[in-house]
Amino acid sequence: MEFGNGTGNGTGNCGIRNGNGIGNGNGNGNVNGNEKVKGANVIKMKPMDSELLREQGHIMVDFIADYYRDLQDSPQDFPVLSQVQPGYLRDMLPNSAPDQPESLNELLDDVTKKIMPGITHWQSPSYFAYYASSTSVAGFLGEMLNAGLSVVGFTWQTSPAATELEIIVLDWLAKLLQLPDHFLSTGHGGGVIQGTGCEAVLVVVLAARDRILKQVGKTVLPQLVVYASDQTHSSFRKACLIGGIHEENIRLLKTDSSTNYGLLPESLEEAISHDIAKGFMPFFICATVGTTSSAAVDPLVPLGKIAKKYGIWMHVDAAYAGNACICPEYRKFIDGVENADSFNMNAHKWLFANQTCSPLWVKDRYALIDALKTNPEYLEYKVKVSERDVVVNYKDWQISLSRRFRSLKLWMVLRLYGSENLRNFIREHVNLAKQFEDYVTQDPHFEVVTTRYFSLVCFRLVPVDGDEDKCNQRNRELLAAINSTGKIFISHTALSGQFILRFAVGAPLTEEKHVTEAWEIIQKHASKFTRNGNC
Amino acid sequence: MEFGNGTGNGTGNCGIRNGNGIGNGNGNGNVNGNEKVKGANVIKMKPMDSELLREQGHIMVDFIADYYRDLQDSPQDFPVLSQVQPGYLRDMLPNSAPDQPESLNELLDDVTKKIMPGITHWQSPSYFAYYASSTSVAGFLGEMLNAGLSVVGFTWQTSPAATELEIIVLDWLAKLLQLPDHFLSTGHGGGVIQGTGCEAVLVVVLAARDRILKQVGKTVLPQLVVYASDQTHSSFRKACLIGGIHEENIRLLKTDSSTNYGLLPESLEEAISHDIAKGFMPFFICATVGTTSSAAVDPLVPLGKIAKKYGIWMHVDAAYAGNACICPEYRKFIDGVENADSFNMNAHKWLFANQTCSPLWVKDRYALIDALKTNPEYLEYKVKVSERDVVVNYKDWQISLSRRFRSLKLWMVLRLYGSENLRNFIREHVNLAKQFEDYVTQDPHFEVVTTRYFSLVCFRLVPVDGDEDKCNQRNRELLAAINSTGKIFISHTALSGQFILRFAVGAPLTEEKHVTEAWEIIQKHASKFTRNGNC
Repeated sequence: MEFGNGTGNGTGNCGIRNGNGIGNGNGNGNVNGNEKVKGANVIKMKPMDSELLREQGHIMVDFIADYYRDLQDSPQDFPVLSQVQPGYLRDMLPNSAPDQPESLNELLDDVTKKIMPGITHWQSPSYFAYYASSTSVAGFLGEMLNAGLSVVGFTWQTSPAATELEIIVLDWLAKLLQLPDHFLSTGHGGGVIQGTGCEAVLVVVLAARDRILKQVGKTVLPQLVVYASDQTHSSFRKACLIGGIHEENIRLLKTDSSTNYGLLPESLEEAISHDIAKGFMPFFICATVGTTSSAAVDPLVPLGKIAKKYGIWMHVDAAYAGNACICPEYRKFIDGVENADSFNMNAHKWLFANQTCSPLWVKDRYALIDALKTNPEYLEYKVKVSERDVVVNYKDWQISLSRRFRSLKLWMVLRLYGSENLRNFIREHVNLAKQFEDYVTQDPHFEVVTTRYFSLVCFRLVPVDGDEDKCNQRNRELLAAINSTGKIFISHTALSGQFILRFAVGAPLTEEKHVTEAWEIIQKHASKFTRNGNC
Repeated sequence: MEFGNGTGNGTGNCGIRNGNGIGNGNGNGNVNGNEKVKGANVIKMKPMDSELLREQGHIMVDFIADYYRDLQDSPQDFPVLSQVQPGYLRDMLPNSAPDQPESLNELLDDVTKKIMPGITHWQSPSYFAYYASSTSVAGFLGEMLNAGLSVVGFTWQTSPAATELEIIVLDWLAKLLQLPDHFLSTGHGGGVIQGTGCEAVLVVVLAARDRILKQVGKTVLPQLVVYASDQTHSSFRKACLIGGIHEENIRLLKTDSSTNYGLLPESLEEAISHDIAKGFMPFFICATVGTTSSAAVDPLVPLGKIAKKYGIWMHVDAAYAGNACICPEYRKFIDGVENADSFNMNAHKWLFANQTCSPLWVKDRYALIDALKTNPEYLEYKVKVSERDVVVNYKDWQISLSRRFRSLKLWMVLRLYGSENLRNFIREHVNLAKQFEDYVTQDPHFEVVTTRYFSLVCFRLVPVDGDEDKCNQRNRELLAAINSTGKIFISHTALSGQFILRFAVGAPLTEEKHVTEAWEIIQKHASKFTRNGNC
């Protein structure tokens, strides 16, 4: 383990650090601030000691800063996709927890030697799989401060700042996204930070379900029908099943390349008419802006009109691409959001907010609260009537009672970068994706298979003599070969029965050279299929 | 803002720090590692820079260490219950996010001046409300490392260490709790870290629901019935409603002081027989060990026998008190857990694991997976058949797809303290509660209203001349008076129509003197009711 010296050179740096040791390795090094019980076999500790936190916190900062430095400087030590075999860790660790304390030194040594090999490095500059879960210095600092204050803001009273900052910051973000006014806290709507897009879609399905069941009676549950494209995230189907919606009433409408895998409004209206004629009750449509599979975009304007016509709750899942909509040039992709009942994006995906941070806005907060409120006596807090509209109790906007102070890091990300830098980060990633797309386009052995809107490129080795089965197999083999190098990590999807490779830019350290290197690796491993002119 | 010097004196300390500045306050101080674009109006930054993370991470460590130091040394600066008025923050912050970056200096200044007044200090040594959400140095370091690695372990492949460490550490904890073997990963069961007890009870309600619906057909949903005591956490009712269980089929059976608010097995069996006779289908019982209201304990042995007899899923919610069961002397409270189908505790409540960390064990992991699995193509990962039992994909054990690497901090807490220290932390808290109980018992104006098992004391001013209404009002006034001092924070509940004060020990900094001071404050404010001999 090496600990670098602090190199801050801003005005007012953080001081000189000689952090060259973290304990003597015999289990006693880091238990200062605690009392060694004479004659006893236990080194008596306290759970919290500010000076121990200071000492060990500094060690951990260096450990993490070194990690990010080494991810860049020594990539060969960090296979992007972990190459361990299932069960690898079991034999490396004891069968039970230790009775006696161990030192931080020992622990970090185990992190380096035993945990690191089993890490798939999502923050590596050569991570191009799924969608990135981007952190940042500000996001990391926000997590630290959150963990440091460690408050539980389930009701306003249990930390007014946690509730009020969330309201304010989600208004800020709504303005950056140019969301309609009814999503702001000043109207009947408002924002709330969920853990994930999965939680977000679940709570709005429940809100919409309970709204209709309240109107027409709960016996109609088996008639309730929901709609989405077949490209919609699996969490939508899961949310419906959790809420008791019958599986056969989940209509995942077919899409194809003719709409670049966006949902055809005509398909939706036809399905709705058909269902109504058969006595079903349509109540929910989940539209996606930037699907997980291929970043497809459902057309919100026509879908919203249909939703309005039939009185259906329209949710917009913009988990990934919603982040790009803080840039004016991408805002068009959510045109039509003014007819949505709810809108969600994952700020931990592409707004550098560190997991988890999934802002959700609803048009009618009371629909959410009606579905999710609890009022146990032990949480009761009397507020004056005049304050009733001001006091938000976020426990009634989500599944769990407890909640972390997540708005803190979003506030820090927005302030420590400013919206112009955040836009630039996103544009930079899109430019890198565009560069990769150019590489693919210029190589006749490959093809880009969907129109690229954001930072995801869907591509594949082209079929030879129209043999799609063989082509799928070769792309599958190519993917496995690339990822087994540990040098880059990309993932795949299926579109219209084709096995497709996905190259998603979004990790915070990625630069042009990493994209170029990635393409070289892909080309190199493709050569066994292409050198004879075959795919 | 002051930054203390590092004072680590263990073998190998973290070096001397002269951290006396964090920027020059004009917005440029902390953007080193980034490029100032000449002539442009934006200070161009990168989202991740290891040396900026190092510099600012050290500053944040000092900020947080200072916070814990000052919480102890200058309690007058930190009212435990925030004393701000609703809406206080709105006017202190701008209406929109800044375009340009601000400095960490400015931000931390705002944290101190604007956020801190709105914080209810859950980590204050004088916090005695609800149940504590205890952090620790190890828990904090675990959160840091989690945020630093920032991996998303939804499937095994996406970070094998995240999945495998969770399996191993939950086996460790299961052994400390002496849970039956079928909860271990080596059998058909296993553990998984949920965010909260609310998520835990939701996923097991869904697992049990889908198991029975699969057997008898989903049309029986309106006949499904669940049971729990009227003391059960509100999240149980919420979970049932989310799952589509009819509200009138949620049987919250009455308890009273004769069983210290534990569920009477006879009540359960009577209710089940009654329901079966009427054509309902009992399928779930939620038993609690350590209720949120008064730390009541439901008797698991007889309840488990009834559950077994009728083929009902029994869940044990031991969110708070389950932590104490790592001590042999408290293990008796979960005797009978061998007949439970699932068991849950919140390690962020009283095992010093920082939010959020809620281990859940199930007897049959396939019941959970059957209810919650998803298999989108884009997450597909082929494993060899021989490995199938080894590869756990935790996405299928929880609501959300994404998940943080929470086992890391639990592992760090267990190793950096060792189980003996953790037991001592819990025992120390129980001893402090006992001390408070003694104070109450010795004062004729007060009474302890339930038998204390753990670190919660339920008490009140006694009624005078049997006037319960007046007594309730006085206790309510006393609570408001105490909490408005900002010196301590206690909460309340209702038991059999009585307004009860709750004194819960569990914050990591609490020592004997804080309990003594708390009692003095309570007595002082009670004197206006007691000085004439009246309650």
